[in-house]
Amino acid sequence: MAIKLFGFWRSLATLRVRIALNLKGIAYEEFSVDLLKGEQFADSYRAVNPQMVVPALIDGDGPVLGQSLAIIDYLEETHPEPALLPASPRERARVRMLAQIVAADAHPLMVPRVRNYLENEYRLDEPTRAKWIQHWSNAALKAIEIQLTDYAVPGRLCHGDTPTVADICLVSQVVGARIFKFDLAAFPTVTRVADECLKIDAFARAHPLKQPGAQTAH
Amino acid sequence: MAIKLFGFWRSLATLRVRIALNLKGIAYEEFSVDLLKGEQFADSYRAVNPQMVVPALIDGDGPVLGQSLAIIDYLEETHPEPALLPASPRERARVRMLAQIVAADAHPLMVPRVRNYLENEYRLDEPTRAKWIQHWSNAALKAIEIQLTDYAVPGRLCHGDTPTVADICLVSQVVGARIFKFDLAAFPTVTRVADECLKIDAFARAHPLKQPGAQTAH
Repeated sequence: MAIKLFGFWRSLATLRVRIALNLKGIAYEEFSVDLLKGEQFADSYRAVNPQMVVPALIDGDGPVLGQSLAIIDYLEETHPEPALLPASPRERARVRMLAQIVAADAHPLMVPRVRNYLENEYRLDEPTRAKWIQHWSNAALKAIEIQLTDYAVPGRLCHGDTPTVADICLVSQVVGARIFKFDLAAFPTVTRVADECLKIDAFARAHPLKQPGAQTAH
Repeated sequence: MAIKLFGFWRSLATLRVRIALNLKGIAYEEFSVDLLKGEQFADSYRAVNPQMVVPALIDGDGPVLGQSLAIIDYLEETHPEPALLPASPRERARVRMLAQIVAADAHPLMVPRVRNYLENEYRLDEPTRAKWIQHWSNAALKAIEIQLTDYAVPGRLCHGDTPTVADICLVSQVVGARIFKFDLAAFPTVTRVADECLKIDAFARAHPLKQPGAQTAH
């Protein structure tokens, strides 16, 4: 197998890469790094990805690639069809902006290492940590909701009718919010687009709860 | 003037866009949005960028573009020379990964809205907030230090001898750490590369303390 993906069933950044691989029809093998057990800090994984985070991707003889959006850009450049970005620079910038509202504003505040820091350093209880996550999740979803309504581009997805990296990131954020059981009523366009995406097999198959690790965990 | 940049002298994400514009020799006019005074929440700015963050860029008749890395990709596509990304997909992925270790892992935890949340919701005092910032800043700088040593690519900068978006992000993180007066002794390669970059006029001119707003603030 040419492509190896190191991820975790519940990781939303891994979810993004899984969707991109599926949309492009790229065969890959996924290796689980259990973030809840701390397997990302094991020497064996540190040798794979010195940043000790997931996702990481190895294509052929390497080197290892990290950061979900960098990996998706790599897949876009090596497997251009179907494209996950529009053709014109302005449209590409809009799609990338939407993706980064999730991947560079909200999600970094919700990852396990940050939740662990809030718990271990500040002794915040679980409801207070959940409120933190919901606060930043809502900020991103609200920003995207405004983009998809007041600054809408025609189509049933974020930018037209074909999936882009904006849809991939939006779905990752909505799936995460639903795992945390957050109320999403204030974001009707966001949830409509996410549900449209999740009707597509490439998205549906990538869902955290469809991964082998989820079955073991439940 | 064709390009308008909305930013703030101290904003590290604005710094990134400023460096990219300078490196590419693109003329622009910068408009200050004072984040300390809350000008990003004014109706006049909300009409420019509904996400109410900086940087935002308007090229000609718009629409507004947001998110520093999305803006830099847009500049790369509309003004390809000099290139801020290498030519091959694998090399581009490495450079993007380094950039995103800063822009998507560390910096989102250090922005004013997060520091304000820690202060207002958790009543954390200034030294405790500084420790938070230093923790995440160090995590990113350590990850990059390892990449630049154990996984080094020959050259005096992050990836060869010409500036890339990885250098832009690395400099933004180092400049931020120095504004906070963090000890950077554990990251000798990172600081050497940052100082090499800061010898380049396009980087030096973009420095927060060289901006008009900094003069007024001091």
